[in-house]
Amino acid sequence: MVIDLNADLGESFGIWRLGDDAALLDVVTSANVACGFHAGDPVTIRRTCAAAIDRGVAIGAQVSYRDLAGFGRREMEMDPEELCAEVLYQIAAVDGIARAMGGRVSYVKPHGALYNRICRDPEQAEAVVVAVADYDQSLPVLTLPGSAVHDIAAREGVPTVAEAFADRAYTPAGTLVPRRSPGAVLHDPGTVAARAVRMATDQVVTASDGSQVPVQARSICLHGDTPGAVRLARAVRDGLADAGVIVKAFT
Amino acid sequence: MVIDLNADLGESFGIWRLGDDAALLDVVTSANVACGFHAGDPVTIRRTCAAAIDRGVAIGAQVSYRDLAGFGRREMEMDPEELCAEVLYQIAAVDGIARAMGGRVSYVKPHGALYNRICRDPEQAEAVVVAVADYDQSLPVLTLPGSAVHDIAAREGVPTVAEAFADRAYTPAGTLVPRRSPGAVLHDPGTVAARAVRMATDQVVTASDGSQVPVQARSICLHGDTPGAVRLARAVRDGLADAGVIVKAFT
Amino acid sequence: MVIDLNADLGESFGIWRLGDDAALLDVVTSANVACGFHAGDPVTIRRTCAAAIDRGVAIGAQVSYRDLAGFGRREMEMDPEELCAEVLYQIAAVDGIARAMGGRVSYVKPHGALYNRICRDPEQAEAVVVAVADYDQSLPVLTLPGSAVHDIAAREGVPTVAEAFADRAYTPAGTLVPRRSPGAVLHDPGTVAARAVRMATDQVVTASDGSQVPVQARSICLHGDTPGAVRLARAVRDGLADAGVIVKAFT
Amino acid sequence: MVIDLNADLGESFGIWRLGDDAALLDVVTSANVACGFHAGDPVTIRRTCAAAIDRGVAIGAQVSYRDLAGFGRREMEMDPEELCAEVLYQIAAVDGIARAMGGRVSYVKPHGALYNRICRDPEQAEAVVVAVADYDQSLPVLTLPGSAVHDIAAREGVPTVAEAFADRAYTPAGTLVPRRSPGAVLHDPGTVAARAVRMATDQVVTASDGSQVPVQARSICLHGDTPGAVRLARAVRDGLADAGVIVKAFT
Repeated sequence: MVIDLNADLGESFGIWRLGDDAALLDVVTSANVACGFHAGDPVTIRRTCAAAIDRGVAIGAQVSYRDLAGFGRREMEMDPEELCAEVLYQIAAVDGIARAMGGRVSYVKPHGALYNRICRDPEQAEAVVVAVADYDQSLPVLTLPGSAVHDIAAREGVPTVAEAFADRAYTPAGTLVPRRSPGAVLHDPGTVAARAVRMATDQVVTASDGSQVPVQARSICLHGDTPGAVRLARAVRDGLADAGVIVKAFT
Repeated sequence: MVIDLNADLGESFGIWRLGDDAALLDVVTSANVACGFHAGDPVTIRRTCAAAIDRGVAIGAQVSYRDLAGFGRREMEMDPEELCAEVLYQIAAVDGIARAMGGRVSYVKPHGALYNRICRDPEQAEAVVVAVADYDQSLPVLTLPGSAVHDIAAREGVPTVAEAFADRAYTPAGTLVPRRSPGAVLHDPGTVAARAVRMATDQVVTASDGSQVPVQARSICLHGDTPGAVRLARAVRDGLADAGVIVKAFT
Repeated sequence: MVIDLNADLGESFGIWRLGDDAALLDVVTSANVACGFHAGDPVTIRRTCAAAIDRGVAIGAQVSYRDLAGFGRREMEMDPEELCAEVLYQIAAVDGIARAMGGRVSYVKPHGALYNRICRDPEQAEAVVVAVADYDQSLPVLTLPGSAVHDIAAREGVPTVAEAFADRAYTPAGTLVPRRSPGAVLHDPGTVAARAVRMATDQVVTASDGSQVPVQARSICLHGDTPGAVRLARAVRDGLADAGVIVKAFT
Repeated sequence: MVIDLNADLGESFGIWRLGDDAALLDVVTSANVACGFHAGDPVTIRRTCAAAIDRGVAIGAQVSYRDLAGFGRREMEMDPEELCAEVLYQIAAVDGIARAMGGRVSYVKPHGALYNRICRDPEQAEAVVVAVADYDQSLPVLTLPGSAVHDIAAREGVPTVAEAFADRAYTPAGTLVPRRSPGAVLHDPGTVAARAVRMATDQVVTASDGSQVPVQARSICLHGDTPGAVRLARAVRDGLADAGVIVKAFT
């Protein structure tokens, strides 16, 4: 029983701060480092990589649409050639900084609207997968099982790592309840920690109708942009430890 | 008698085109590829790298201030830590794309206002040199002999390559006549080609007062953003060939 | 028989030039001035406004998504409040500059992907219309009859001005043939001028199947980003004059 | 005895928050609203203007260099024509939004590095003053007496309003002690409030050597980007009220 915990880090920009990176780095085993397109200036990237390396946390390139004003949360119609080149640019930039600090990028985690889009849009999904393959075919993409990007990565020979969300409600079909629906996001640390443990130990989650749904996950995604989120993340980590689950990066 | 010819390439952005990259790639032996901070979107970077690799032209990272609106031509007061991280980010991004295309970044050429600034500002010069050293201590920086960045690179163990400007007037002291002075820029292809030949063969240039000034250069910088500039570049290349000078990248 | 000719102007950015604004300003009666979000830095806006005022050409605010890298041609999912505020900001910026030059913004022309999106998306269309109404309820929006934005403007009391495209093929239903279809864009100056004349005099256009389709237009949109396009624009203007159509701004 | 209190507001951007605008709006009488170039997206501008109007706080355009990554704190060499057009664009954008909300921009406050630069650089100072004059010659510029911008505004017929800094140490010559010097910034609410009262009532401030220096100010600048700063601002406001000073906008 082994699970990874990943979270978004390095999402400050210039004078503006976001999230409690120091606290999260003590909880997670994989850091999705923003690459400068939705957040993350070069100083922040360098400091985040250095801190992750210092604590033995794996570094992922958290690639995104070019959208600082919208924090990468707005879907964009993009030419696949442009999207592919932009993703390649971002992976390269963060990997180069990580290597200069003594580490390296060991996976790719698409961010926000791009993450959602490539779960269902084969064209954009392929653009992302090709960028990863062009950079380093051995880099895994962190994503949802059954998504378009998952299938295309398999076809292109790019590894994927399945993730799940302990603080999100699931439908009986095993998909996430849309964020705007009531009850879509869970806030109680005990509940969320218990769900994380069941995901890690039994590969199931209790769906919104009470049924038990299989969920395959080598990593659980945590959030850290509020004080409460850090407490939640800590509760998940502690709950997993108490249940005898080894928390360890997948890389 | 060997000389390199370098020029700025990949300076388009989005819909906007700049320069005749295809024509210049047939003339130069080193391509200073814009990294996205003053020009050069990721698609342009990838295409420029691919074309350079295809023709055997060396690729340099043309690092710059973050200033699309001013094309990197406006000096900025920058915190050294920020400048260092931004230069590192740019080198990494272009090198990663070049490697994905089968090549690599083999030198660094600061652009515009940053180039001028680090000729005389030790603080910013050190920030650039440290970024290069952090990324790859063997990467040479293309710059002017006697400049601040040249001296600091020597101290930090980063190689430098001296360049000269065949189409610029020189003072008797061996520095460039400021661009706004009358006669600062030469336009006659025959004159410029003859100066390039003398730079390569005799290591001298005729200064604005007619005196002969020693000039040390392993590379000559050409410009390509006007049709006339491409003809000028072609005249320099042909003049060098006629004089028996081998035109060859320094890398 | 009166018609307006409108075209996109001021679409340079920083060092990059686009289109032959000087030539187009001699042809059109309405200038859609880029507002800085997809193109158009403040110096360009000011110069374009000054030149338009100088020649008696009406000034429109060519509002867009915030997307310099994609020239505003990529549809974006946007929160209506954000879109509304961004459109308001753009109108205000260009109107203020135009007023400082002795003119004013007298209409609004959405650009590129935003133009297309608000023809069919009521939510984004309403955001744009509300921005116009908040700024100045008397400013007309230049758009396609029958579009979502047209209907919502009518409901909100914002005037609209109908435009047509002399160089685009029309379906028998009176809509534009999608740009990627064969024959979607017409290039022959004589043909395009003749279509413009029929649009202005008979309010009809010959559709792709040869049928005559009614088309309602107080303005005809021209393009100016290629030398050929300027010749086409000139042919349209001359053809209209020869047919006795008065070419005059709608404002 | 009347004094204005001004502070920077609306300096959030996209997802990132900065400062406690709601708390500050209860203290100040003039709000320097960021215009989008160093901070302040259009939604933030609109909300800040609406909140200021709601509380009867005067709105100023806090114009800046185009520098989101550096928060406008990095001096830039700029062509005066460009700077002038960029300042005009910013004033127009915020004024248009303020008018749509039922208010208006009633003064201009340069931000950060631009503020410092135009205190001593006549060329950039003139560019800013001309932009203000082009937009509305009656708009006052908030600045330091004796500065370059102050003198040039007088010459160009643009009004100025003198401001002072209650939380900054002054030299015996009446200039600010540079921010990096020890003791340059005062933090004790009682001390700062007492200085504000003396500035308002006696037009003097105690300099760093203990001497009494005349200081002319119609407005006192407060800061609000930390919780402590809001308490300080509140202490100043209360201290002024207790001393019988009327706190009132200058517009």
